[in-house]
Amino acid sequence: MIKVSVLGHGFIGKAHAHAYLTAPEFYDVQRPELGVAYGRNEAALADFARRFSFKRYSTKLDEAIRDSDIVDNCLPNHLHHGPTLEALESGKNVLLEKPMAVNVDQAEELAKEAEKAGVKAAVGFNYRFLPAISLAKKLIDEGRIGRVHEFRGAYLQGYLADPNTPVAQSGTLIGWRQRKETAGSGSLGDLGSHLIDMSHYLLGEISEVSAQEQILYPERPTETGEKIKIQVDDAFASLVRFKGGAIGVIEASRVAPGMKNQMRIEIHGNKGSIAFNLERPSELSVYFEEGAQTSGFRTILAHDPHWWPPGHVLGWEHSVVIEIAHFLDAVENDKPVSPMATFQDGLYVQKVLDAVERSSRSGKWESVG
Amino acid sequence: MIKVSVLGHGFIGKAHAHAYLTAPEFYDVQRPELGVAYGRNEAALADFARRFSFKRYSTKLDEAIRDSDIVDNCLPNHLHHGPTLEALESGKNVLLEKPMAVNVDQAEELAKEAEKAGVKAAVGFNYRFLPAISLAKKLIDEGRIGRVHEFRGAYLQGYLADPNTPVAQSGTLIGWRQRKETAGSGSLGDLGSHLIDMSHYLLGEISEVSAQEQILYPERPTETGEKIKIQVDDAFASLVRFKGGAIGVIEASRVAPGMKNQMRIEIHGNKGSIAFNLERPSELSVYFEEGAQTSGFRTILAHDPHWWPPGHVLGWEHSVVIEIAHFLDAVENDKPVSPMATFQDGLYVQKVLDAVERSSRSGKWESVG
Amino acid sequence: MIKVSVLGHGFIGKAHAHAYLTAPEFYDVQRPELGVAYGRNEAALADFARRFSFKRYSTKLDEAIRDSDIVDNCLPNHLHHGPTLEALESGKNVLLEKPMAVNVDQAEELAKEAEKAGVKAAVGFNYRFLPAISLAKKLIDEGRIGRVHEFRGAYLQGYLADPNTPVAQSGTLIGWRQRKETAGSGSLGDLGSHLIDMSHYLLGEISEVSAQEQILYPERPTETGEKIKIQVDDAFASLVRFKGGAIGVIEASRVAPGMKNQMRIEIHGNKGSIAFNLERPSELSVYFEEGAQTSGFRTILAHDPHWWPPGHVLGWEHSVVIEIAHFLDAVENDKPVSPMATFQDGLYVQKVLDAVERSSRSGKWESVG
Amino acid sequence: MIKVSVLGHGFIGKAHAHAYLTAPEFYDVQRPELGVAYGRNEAALADFARRFSFKRYSTKLDEAIRDSDIVDNCLPNHLHHGPTLEALESGKNVLLEKPMAVNVDQAEELAKEAEKAGVKAAVGFNYRFLPAISLAKKLIDEGRIGRVHEFRGAYLQGYLADPNTPVAQSGTLIGWRQRKETAGSGSLGDLGSHLIDMSHYLLGEISEVSAQEQILYPERPTETGEKIKIQVDDAFASLVRFKGGAIGVIEASRVAPGMKNQMRIEIHGNKGSIAFNLERPSELSVYFEEGAQTSGFRTILAHDPHWWPPGHVLGWEHSVVIEIAHFLDAVENDKPVSPMATFQDGLYVQKVLDAVERSSRSGKWESVG
Repeated sequence: MIKVSVLGHGFIGKAHAHAYLTAPEFYDVQRPELGVAYGRNEAALADFARRFSFKRYSTKLDEAIRDSDIVDNCLPNHLHHGPTLEALESGKNVLLEKPMAVNVDQAEELAKEAEKAGVKAAVGFNYRFLPAISLAKKLIDEGRIGRVHEFRGAYLQGYLADPNTPVAQSGTLIGWRQRKETAGSGSLGDLGSHLIDMSHYLLGEISEVSAQEQILYPERPTETGEKIKIQVDDAFASLVRFKGGAIGVIEASRVAPGMKNQMRIEIHGNKGSIAFNLERPSELSVYFEEGAQTSGFRTILAHDPHWWPPGHVLGWEHSVVIEIAHFLDAVENDKPVSPMATFQDGLYVQKVLDAVERSSRSGKWESVG
Repeated sequence: MIKVSVLGHGFIGKAHAHAYLTAPEFYDVQRPELGVAYGRNEAALADFARRFSFKRYSTKLDEAIRDSDIVDNCLPNHLHHGPTLEALESGKNVLLEKPMAVNVDQAEELAKEAEKAGVKAAVGFNYRFLPAISLAKKLIDEGRIGRVHEFRGAYLQGYLADPNTPVAQSGTLIGWRQRKETAGSGSLGDLGSHLIDMSHYLLGEISEVSAQEQILYPERPTETGEKIKIQVDDAFASLVRFKGGAIGVIEASRVAPGMKNQMRIEIHGNKGSIAFNLERPSELSVYFEEGAQTSGFRTILAHDPHWWPPGHVLGWEHSVVIEIAHFLDAVENDKPVSPMATFQDGLYVQKVLDAVERSSRSGKWESVG
Repeated sequence: MIKVSVLGHGFIGKAHAHAYLTAPEFYDVQRPELGVAYGRNEAALADFARRFSFKRYSTKLDEAIRDSDIVDNCLPNHLHHGPTLEALESGKNVLLEKPMAVNVDQAEELAKEAEKAGVKAAVGFNYRFLPAISLAKKLIDEGRIGRVHEFRGAYLQGYLADPNTPVAQSGTLIGWRQRKETAGSGSLGDLGSHLIDMSHYLLGEISEVSAQEQILYPERPTETGEKIKIQVDDAFASLVRFKGGAIGVIEASRVAPGMKNQMRIEIHGNKGSIAFNLERPSELSVYFEEGAQTSGFRTILAHDPHWWPPGHVLGWEHSVVIEIAHFLDAVENDKPVSPMATFQDGLYVQKVLDAVERSSRSGKWESVG
Repeated sequence: MIKVSVLGHGFIGKAHAHAYLTAPEFYDVQRPELGVAYGRNEAALADFARRFSFKRYSTKLDEAIRDSDIVDNCLPNHLHHGPTLEALESGKNVLLEKPMAVNVDQAEELAKEAEKAGVKAAVGFNYRFLPAISLAKKLIDEGRIGRVHEFRGAYLQGYLADPNTPVAQSGTLIGWRQRKETAGSGSLGDLGSHLIDMSHYLLGEISEVSAQEQILYPERPTETGEKIKIQVDDAFASLVRFKGGAIGVIEASRVAPGMKNQMRIEIHGNKGSIAFNLERPSELSVYFEEGAQTSGFRTILAHDPHWWPPGHVLGWEHSVVIEIAHFLDAVENDKPVSPMATFQDGLYVQKVLDAVERSSRSGKWESVG
């Protein structure tokens, strides 16, 4: 029985724990044992461990790593590097939440170590596993939309739109997503990384970018009314050029009111187009050029036969369940983790994030890598 | 630890089993034990039992019932009556898949027996528990759309549209959903029952109906090419009058190409309107009269804080998980099953189904009950 | 030069006058002369005549009829019969606004007289001429959605939803649309007639109906606060059976908040479906069965090359302009008015309206005609 | 009676001619006389003049200018400068189709001359006059979405997506929109100029841009199969910074299959958002922050009471009709042309186009002006 330790018990930790329990119900993988839940807030940790039937919980990282076959790292971004390195050095298989790290150096070290360790190592770019995205990938690979020449991605949320809303706090610390040292960046690493991975998965690599990161509200109040200085971007936008010749725009915002979780993608080829919106995760919108009379964007309800009958749609979490079913299969049967994002893929994303930051500072196009 | 036996291992059996395992992850209920899985196809049953970690499986109904606190009956419609009756007589709590039975007599006997048994008994009208429907209920009850005067419900699927597609078969038998003796009716009981329950939940009781059931293709081929006679409705439509004065149209079809699982509801009051489509289960469309300039239908992403952050949308199955969390809570803490559909509610639906059938035959308005 | 007299200067009178002036800009028809504008409110009439460049206006019906080649009757429903009869007896070509009359007897007399007169006579069911509807007609006729077996039509408006909103008044009279003697019926004749014509145009004739008309608010205030008794239906719904074997639901409401002008149509065949919504008049939604993977409803922007480049969409009024271009061509070149609705088509609609009213009273299915 | 000469009889010339004839039907302006239609293709010109009831047509520009009160210049971009200058020097009021010119120098000269001439001079950025855009402007100005901090504009068409489709030709010349000397630029000036004007109208001026223009297919065939070199951009994208502190992305494409005329705008403030799509020109999508439970994007059918009842939606052309009604009123009653785009506004747009081109070449941020 494969033993899994989950590091972190926030939103993503819960999604992963749920996925390990659910995957064997629908996929041909062995039921893993949720072994150790690791975290630092003991009360929350205990509750998490109980709800998801972990064997035990621990606030000691080495225990969690030691007693596992898979280490699933759902800690904040700045804790992606250290614990993952430790897990790899201990020869554990690793699933690491995105983005891979807070800078390229960390990501490079992790990628090297993963290769050396010879374990299964993947980065949690879960949207690759949405049935609608799998279908998009298939249609593109089959040439159904021809030569792909444009990519448009916008990942929009609105929860920071109002500058008077106190920033989230955890104890005396503002939330890790709002601090540069813990998050690395704001909308860029949190949301933009998903789009960069999507564009990589569907179109290939970006060669260069021109970008602006923006802190629209440099001061925000905490819950106690104190003003704090904001150091991560509220929004960013980038022009991109792909190695294959396509062009694109990739942007994200956390200050777009009404947008809850709109990761929107549009892809144009010379024979058709594809569009996707994460708030309707089962739907893929596709246009094939079929003559003036009856051509139009069609809404396909992407269907995955492992689950419910057509039209009984899946939700956001299924991207995680399907991903983890895949990871369990890779570990159990010694298969490649692909089409999951490998650590090399994760490193690539980190390099694009870095190029975006460099371009924001230089005001010029910057090469990736 | 509450022990659950699940009868039936088809689509709905899987959804329920998944829900029992998932509910305690997100709701404050004890983790139940999945005790006995019951069915008649042993190979499929064993697979089902293994995937969902049942203690064991059995092809003997009495074993499944005896060794349980909750009997969850997901068998075909014609097996709702007998096994449920047996479970009630054994003093078991019962969750019974919709529709309650294949006729009013059966439903009445079950409702009486449930009352006598004094157990928790509910009918699986799971859509009541979609966050979007819970929000609709709240808005209506708060008077936000005023006096409700119209209801429009259409539940549309398309999988039977092509009369040359062989009807599903199980062994030498055509699928139970296509046989009158096992299903009771076609689109009416299968799909229409959901709409009748929705209208009941949101508006109150129907007093009379005028309806037509239709077998559009009286003969369909089986997989072996043989022609069989179809005895259940491909589609039905009914005009309805509510006791509270509202009017409505309720209809369903399994011959509507392109419709995968569109249960659509529109409700009009004198101050606003509400619309819902099950293929986008997280969205509620609401119109409030707010002056000519800025009034418009708004799309609300209904949010349930037990789950993921806003915009990380839930899917179809969450209606079942939330429902079963509620049922576990009712059993565990001896609370009323409401707002689940009680056996009285299930009986009411059966009476409306019956009135629809009577009206289809008589060509006249027929009273409910 | 063809001379046109327009009777009535309300909303529809304006739309028709605009259409006569605009049609020759885009279609190969002679520019007609707008001769006499007829009405009874002299101030409004003079303004109308001036805006649309009529040669003159007159409050005398016989003058308007005499001095014309085409009489375009846009008067309230109860004035469809008399003036049209007079025009036909004078040998004038007639375009008559829908519905044809306030009862079947009137419509029958008009249809007979039109045949006798041997003139061009058409009823203004303008939606036949929307490019999206023309495309729907073409696709159905070509068999693209197979055997058509279901029709669903709902024409929804909301301006009467609030029973406290004073009913429109003209002088001391409540608006003609709210009085039985002037309108014939409420939502039925006003909105339902369009759907009945659409279903006729696209599927063929209805053989029988089961219906309910409903006055939801039997009393409404006038602008002076006085209460008046309402005698026309706020909403109606009908089950229908087509001669060709299809079934359907046709309904309308003027008490559906948020619905401005939603004439929605859904048509299902055994190979595909078609959907339309008048609030997006350029769009036709079409589903063809093309395999599970990529089938989906596609949104076609129906294009008419007489007008602007693709995507520069037409609006509501273009249904009228295209219709009148067709009528001018028929008159000028002595062609059949078809695909406009003939007086026989108008009579058929009136018979269905009558069957709906009879069924509402009898509570039974009623035959058409 | 105001006399109008229209220069050019292509798509836009027709739209303007139609608008002069239609405006007085719905707005309180005098009916103008369409005096001289000017063009160079005499057959097409004669047809145009006949259809729109011009007094006469002429292939001599000076005649057209001399005999007019308004010169409406709908010629290709490279002919915006000379004929407009001539008209201004002759003291004529001028409506000039967008973009103002093929470079900043031309635009500057025109703006100066317009000021000197003291006539009514406006640039045809017609989308300002769509009722939905007027509503957006009003909501923003009233502060309904708070401080505006993000603008996202994409104007997408797909007619050049397939590189094997022959480019449009006129005689032996490829279409003027595909030649740099006649068009100035490709998607940038044609489509991007509209978005730049929209952002100006709604948010204010852009201070700097970072952009890429792209010729994705440098060679395309003509109708005779010959290959020609393409010198104008298929697509462009730009990051922008507004003087008021907002950021944005503005892009356009003519190689986006399925997009017919999607000018899409999204605007985020700290209290709400606004979205618009030109393929549904009557709809404005608006989000106001009103609490978690019922906030959602609402679709408003923007209503203009000069026209038809609510829900009888307007189309693309109405933007032109309303604009020209406004221009006629300005000329007739000596009012400012604002909110039409003045020649200063047109010059501003030209400066942004220029900054986009400079940035595309330099690979750096470039200031506007």
